[in-house]
Amino acid sequence: MREDVIGRSRVEDTEELERYYEELRKFDAGALWTVANEIEPWYPQPRSVPMHWRYEDLRPMVLKSASLVSGDDAGRRVVMLVNEGRQELSAAVGLLYTGLQIMNPGESMTAHRHAAAALRFVIEGEGAWTIVDGDRLKVGPGDFAITPKGTWHEHGNDSSQTPVIWQDGLDIPLVNALDANFYEVHPELHQVPGKVVNTSLLQHGAGILKPDRRGWSKRYSPLLAYPWEMTYQALLDQAKVSEGTPHDGVIMEYVNPVTGGSVMPTMGAHMQLLQPGQATQAHRHTGSVIYHVAKGRGHSVIAGRRFDWKQNDIFAVPSWAWHEHANDDDRDDACLFSFNDFPMIHSLDLWAEAAYTEDGGHQPVG
Amino acid sequence: MREDVIGRSRVEDTEELERYYEELRKFDAGALWTVANEIEPWYPQPRSVPMHWRYEDLRPMVLKSASLVSGDDAGRRVVMLVNEGRQELSAAVGLLYTGLQIMNPGESMTAHRHAAAALRFVIEGEGAWTIVDGDRLKVGPGDFAITPKGTWHEHGNDSSQTPVIWQDGLDIPLVNALDANFYEVHPELHQVPGKVVNTSLLQHGAGILKPDRRGWSKRYSPLLAYPWEMTYQALLDQAKVSEGTPHDGVIMEYVNPVTGGSVMPTMGAHMQLLQPGQATQAHRHTGSVIYHVAKGRGHSVIAGRRFDWKQNDIFAVPSWAWHEHANDDDRDDACLFSFNDFPMIHSLDLWAEAAYTEDGGHQPVG
Amino acid sequence: MREDVIGRSRVEDTEELERYYEELRKFDAGALWTVANEIEPWYPQPRSVPMHWRYEDLRPMVLKSASLVSGDDAGRRVVMLVNEGRQELSAAVGLLYTGLQIMNPGESMTAHRHAAAALRFVIEGEGAWTIVDGDRLKVGPGDFAITPKGTWHEHGNDSSQTPVIWQDGLDIPLVNALDANFYEVHPELHQVPGKVVNTSLLQHGAGILKPDRRGWSKRYSPLLAYPWEMTYQALLDQAKVSEGTPHDGVIMEYVNPVTGGSVMPTMGAHMQLLQPGQATQAHRHTGSVIYHVAKGRGHSVIAGRRFDWKQNDIFAVPSWAWHEHANDDDRDDACLFSFNDFPMIHSLDLWAEAAYTEDGGHQPVG
Amino acid sequence: MREDVIGRSRVEDTEELERYYEELRKFDAGALWTVANEIEPWYPQPRSVPMHWRYEDLRPMVLKSASLVSGDDAGRRVVMLVNEGRQELSAAVGLLYTGLQIMNPGESMTAHRHAAAALRFVIEGEGAWTIVDGDRLKVGPGDFAITPKGTWHEHGNDSSQTPVIWQDGLDIPLVNALDANFYEVHPELHQVPGKVVNTSLLQHGAGILKPDRRGWSKRYSPLLAYPWEMTYQALLDQAKVSEGTPHDGVIMEYVNPVTGGSVMPTMGAHMQLLQPGQATQAHRHTGSVIYHVAKGRGHSVIAGRRFDWKQNDIFAVPSWAWHEHANDDDRDDACLFSFNDFPMIHSLDLWAEAAYTEDGGHQPVG
Ligand SMILES: [Fe+2]
Ligand SMILES: [Fe+2]
Ligand SMILES: [Fe+2]
Ligand SMILES: [Fe+2]
Ligand SMILES: [Fe+2]
Ligand SMILES: [Fe+2]
Ligand SMILES: [Fe+2]
Ligand SMILES: [Fe+2]
Repeated sequence: MREDVIGRSRVEDTEELERYYEELRKFDAGALWTVANEIEPWYPQPRSVPMHWRYEDLRPMVLKSASLVSGDDAGRRVVMLVNEGRQELSAAVGLLYTGLQIMNPGESMTAHRHAAAALRFVIEGEGAWTIVDGDRLKVGPGDFAITPKGTWHEHGNDSSQTPVIWQDGLDIPLVNALDANFYEVHPELHQVPGKVVNTSLLQHGAGILKPDRRGWSKRYSPLLAYPWEMTYQALLDQAKVSEGTPHDGVIMEYVNPVTGGSVMPTMGAHMQLLQPGQATQAHRHTGSVIYHVAKGRGHSVIAGRRFDWKQNDIFAVPSWAWHEHANDDDRDDACLFSFNDFPMIHSLDLWAEAAYTEDGGHQPVG
Repeated sequence: MREDVIGRSRVEDTEELERYYEELRKFDAGALWTVANEIEPWYPQPRSVPMHWRYEDLRPMVLKSASLVSGDDAGRRVVMLVNEGRQELSAAVGLLYTGLQIMNPGESMTAHRHAAAALRFVIEGEGAWTIVDGDRLKVGPGDFAITPKGTWHEHGNDSSQTPVIWQDGLDIPLVNALDANFYEVHPELHQVPGKVVNTSLLQHGAGILKPDRRGWSKRYSPLLAYPWEMTYQALLDQAKVSEGTPHDGVIMEYVNPVTGGSVMPTMGAHMQLLQPGQATQAHRHTGSVIYHVAKGRGHSVIAGRRFDWKQNDIFAVPSWAWHEHANDDDRDDACLFSFNDFPMIHSLDLWAEAAYTEDGGHQPVG
Repeated sequence: MREDVIGRSRVEDTEELERYYEELRKFDAGALWTVANEIEPWYPQPRSVPMHWRYEDLRPMVLKSASLVSGDDAGRRVVMLVNEGRQELSAAVGLLYTGLQIMNPGESMTAHRHAAAALRFVIEGEGAWTIVDGDRLKVGPGDFAITPKGTWHEHGNDSSQTPVIWQDGLDIPLVNALDANFYEVHPELHQVPGKVVNTSLLQHGAGILKPDRRGWSKRYSPLLAYPWEMTYQALLDQAKVSEGTPHDGVIMEYVNPVTGGSVMPTMGAHMQLLQPGQATQAHRHTGSVIYHVAKGRGHSVIAGRRFDWKQNDIFAVPSWAWHEHANDDDRDDACLFSFNDFPMIHSLDLWAEAAYTEDGGHQPVG
Repeated sequence: MREDVIGRSRVEDTEELERYYEELRKFDAGALWTVANEIEPWYPQPRSVPMHWRYEDLRPMVLKSASLVSGDDAGRRVVMLVNEGRQELSAAVGLLYTGLQIMNPGESMTAHRHAAAALRFVIEGEGAWTIVDGDRLKVGPGDFAITPKGTWHEHGNDSSQTPVIWQDGLDIPLVNALDANFYEVHPELHQVPGKVVNTSLLQHGAGILKPDRRGWSKRYSPLLAYPWEMTYQALLDQAKVSEGTPHDGVIMEYVNPVTGGSVMPTMGAHMQLLQPGQATQAHRHTGSVIYHVAKGRGHSVIAGRRFDWKQNDIFAVPSWAWHEHANDDDRDDACLFSFNDFPMIHSLDLWAEAAYTEDGGHQPVG
């Protein structure tokens, strides 16, 4: 990729050079100038594209999977969502993976753990439980839960009637890109949970008070589940005193109450509230984001394309793509759950951001 | 103080030495060995003694002050509690100050700020308010509030009928010992508060979710008031899954939700719950503590002396004094609010601690 | 990839499933169980293989490039070293890039900057200079220098006789994998350096004393060049009091003197000393490493393959590959410079490590 | 202390109030308004005054002590320097202690440790050694060494001819004010040092390179001695690229190479260089400082008083006192060593600072 700009590679191929390149290949070497402009782009060139998955499309497919394969055989019965530009990595956007997992009434999975970190956002069903390092959690629609790196986990549905469907989010493609993934099946196949359910919430849910001297030194939140009711209330409270940011409205991050930081070192999660009729202004930044419509209906414009969404739809914003969100309901608020790789981007000091300033902050829709 | 131990000062006074000492004094100098054993004690030698102030004694005196002096003339109308061994410093224990402040119905104070940090624990009255850096807070019995170093503050009572009494805690003696106190009267005498009451609670009270990108970089908690209901519920939740520590029972620290650390860099605060009939084991540690009985009745043994307390009593534990607490009610729990200088002790790496191991952890009462 | 183990995916393909998979593809979805065992491997499965580049092979090729293309046209005249398993990423190992850059006598490059971070290890030539954010550095053989993310940089050779060859190390593949790369040509094409050469070394080279209140808040080291003499002396000093680690001998990390941490958030660098005849024991860990033989001769065994190296050779160890090093000279020490992605691996909490315990810590060589 | 200002205490004593105050005393209580203006001053009111101790006065007294008492009987043979306003605390300024210690040729002290932290600045004698937690250090004139809190230490002089005199600095008054001092005599009276002298310097003296994975987690510097030569060279290097600050000239802080922070959590130390003829401008700040003239001659103006100093003189600046320094030699530089309580002041967020802006930054001398 020749660019006729000083400071960029402008070498034209010649026969002599071709011979030289061939010789280099023998020594497992190459000429930087043949790829420099590509691997040092002017700005990020993600292969990921904006994506939108409709729950009305996915739900029947997910339900179908529940009859086609047993959870036992599948490991977990998950329909994964794959970015058109990231199929070889099974990524939904950037280096993030997501999927919809279903568990039939009465079903449960075996326990395992891995170096990849996981999170869940519950969509439907009342019987969902998960045991994370011995803490049995009950979770329902709108709840957010985490399964940090290296924690034993197993899930199930103790309802006798309705299936559970939740969204999984993992950093599998990232951890694989870093050649750092490990996997283990639990030696007993199942954990023995403690007697009390939702221990982590009872211990750490107060947030503004912490257990004295608990000596937590792990790199992730000891709080493992964040109920929808507390989350939505926090947004309503926040909305009483703040308009939030121009690009996101009222937005809050789920935090590790021990440090005030993100829930895990590779992935963070947010919930944001769009007031009736609110339309945010566009911005873009490094980092990839997967959104889940937790409440309401509206649309987002991503890289100039409009996506109309409603509850339980999922959409993805690649790094450095312009994006803006609108609540299309004039009477009720809308809530977007999202997870992202921002903690990593910040750890590595790779955050960059820009506001879209033309036309009141709104992109032309192509 | 001569001690006949190798490694300690054992010099006996002689006439020659006396002459030498006198000569040294001319040069603003002295001989270390004349004071070494005193200033390098085997273990801490606080001048503070254990103290107990009964609310039934103090309340009439506090009410009386409300008729004797105007709040305006007094600056603030406060009965301060003074340790027998710390009168020259106006300290309740160690380098901590405490007092009971009263505000008559309809009264309000002028605004000021200082380098000393303050905290409040509300005892009675429904009309209490305080404006801290423009945030108007409403506080009631059992609520804990902070006025960090350098924040403008002014208080009042908007009840038409009942006085407000709360306990003040400050690090005035510490900040004076460090020659670092400053004081300013507000140029307008009063702040203009924001429209919404309890902004800090609405913004930061969720604890497990934080406002995105709020950019808080101050060294104290942006959450300024911690309601009693949330605090007591957090203790009850915690008690479902933990017995707490042997020396304190179920105990939680009020935290800065941005960092998970103590509310201010010089002082921290806790609330602890003693189950019906529970008696903790004795321990001791560096750091000074002032307790306020938030609920119930019981007794504490401090340095071998027994103090029987009931609601709203205040007592103090000096550094390195053995202490243990008991709830003397068989049917109801008891709650102790306390504040301390632990954040400073830990910053300076001066924490030391020991458990009392004899006799099941209980001191003989002399 | 079917694995007949409970807790792994064991679903066999059927016609009905094939139809289901096809239907999923329409919705940009897939069945996790078809790829689960691959993307959740039992342990890291790097595509990178161990590599060894001989300087005697590379040097003629590098010299040849200097006559084939102008530095101006090439951007920079660099022979890059490419892992057999990472050609599509232009990576030497993992997500690390490396290459050999040559500058003819009197030559200089234009200034630019990028989100990717760079480091240099100088091999030969006395005239090398680099200007990093206005600080002009002179560097010679054995010196280590950094060009952190976002710093303007330009290089040159002010010798009239000999070319400069140095090794570049960059995190380009990583920053591209994270879709976070940016590139800018300096608006004036060249910086105006300060009057004093090696300012950063004069200001920060003492290490054990720091400029008071310099207020450095950037995420990388303000010290930009680390001379060979100081580095080698530090190793000799260290060797007087420590045998180092069993797997690396006496090894020291180049640090940011402001924080004591790694020089940059994505890459770290070490220098290690192997005593005459010393052979370390094998270990493996997550993280990728590129070594440069700074002094001496010896061999390394990587994933069971033996590589005999001498001065200025380069070799690479992939994540989770067993590796051990030996100095084959009985009379002189050997020094290995290396750089790695460990700071990132630690930030993301992905470090894992194991010692090779059989056969005295030595792998069988296949 | 009545002040006729709104927002300050303005209550006049009456008979009724006197009776009330007496009643309060019975309950270990008092009226805040009787002391409020005193304990909440407009700005710091240190009892410490500026001090200057001439080495020509002190040296003979110190030498005399060596014949008057045995080191063994004295514990350590130290002439302590006492602030006129701090005699009851044996403090030189604020809550800092300092003294001059002498050891006769061939003498050595027994080992002990304490919660108070110590530092040394060597004045004369070539035979000084100290063993700190088993590391035997040799120190000479101009060297700075630390004995952090809780480390076993013992000193001696292995010269056969000349005595050793050094300055001790300790935080004894601070640690006592916080009721946190402990003292222990070594059970064996002496430590067994490691074979290599100055281990800490060999391991950590490089500063810009650190031993890999050393796992140092203590709160103080693992580097225990900072040689004069390295210190002076660092100042000369710094002076080539920076004029330093207007109030201190070229000034550097001795740091913990693991963290880049101060050497100990309670006390920090600096060395500063005044160019020939240089006179700094006055400023003031919280925090107390003790200076030692390491090189040259000059004067300082402290709170409007002029103190003319020469090599080995000691002087002290109280909190919030204006101060400025001048090198009165036109041909040679002057160096001031100093130690302070700044790390504590910063930990507790009590730093305040102001520049003297009138008259070119120079105080009138009264
Ligand atoms: Fe899993
Ligand atoms: Fe965004
Ligand atoms: Fe106040
Ligand atoms: Fe205690
Ligand atoms: Fe570059
Ligand atoms: Fe290794
Ligand atoms: Fe000592
Ligand atoms: Fe100063």
